[in-house]
Amino acid sequence: MANIFKLPASLPTEELFETLLKSEKVLIERIISTGQTTPPGEWYDQDTDEWVILLQGEAELSYADGSRIKLCSGDYVFIPARCQHRVDYTSSEPPCIWLAVHLKKSTEIEDSRGSHSSGADES
Amino acid sequence: MANIFKLPASLPTEELFETLLKSEKVLIERIISTGQTTPPGEWYDQDTDEWVILLQGEAELSYADGSRIKLCSGDYVFIPARCQHRVDYTSSEPPCIWLAVHLKKSTEIEDSRGSHSSGADES
Repeated sequence: MANIFKLPASLPTEELFETLLKSEKVLIERIISTGQTTPPGEWYDQDTDEWVILLQGEAELSYADGSRIKLCSGDYVFIPARCQHRVDYTSSEPPCIWLAVHLKKSTEIEDSRGSHSSGADES
Repeated sequence: MANIFKLPASLPTEELFETLLKSEKVLIERIISTGQTTPPGEWYDQDTDEWVILLQGEAELSYADGSRIKLCSGDYVFIPARCQHRVDYTSSEPPCIWLAVHLKKSTEIEDSRGSHSSGADES
């Protein structure tokens, strides 16, 4: 048993990605953001579906169609594969704690989160 | 977008199960407990792996080997398929809000949560 709200004594300057569960079907991870955003002009463009919930903090997402959403603690969204999106804002006090469930494609091999850990794909 | 902490104006006397995402790979659901426990002598005995986090409230689980765990807000556990377990306690003030990710077996058809919605399998 572990607790998702328990943070490391010191946080890195980059976003922190931690795998909570990895199977052939899903990757569940905790992401801690402390002000980081997607670099200007870049987009997340993932090849897997993602269900994500913000459990602490505040954040803003935007989509390629120009729509924007503000997230506060408890808000969750489903982001289909290939749905371009970016993170425009993440609070640092308190840090954002995200819980993300990535639905792997059946053909994927174990580590499928390249586009996530790098922060963003090229635009 | 929806918020996992937003509860219905009135809660049923039974546990409330709500599907947040259903795909061929996973079922993500919110479960709201308000004091319900697994009936004496009965066990959950699921045929799918489950990752579950308690996001509000307090609860206690026990396993067939006699071990017990207390959960508070943010605690998460992985319960493998066929790992018999029961819920010994759930708080009602505040209600328990669980987020459960069920990893479906590839051979399963759409609705795989019979043993969950019924509360427990026979012992």
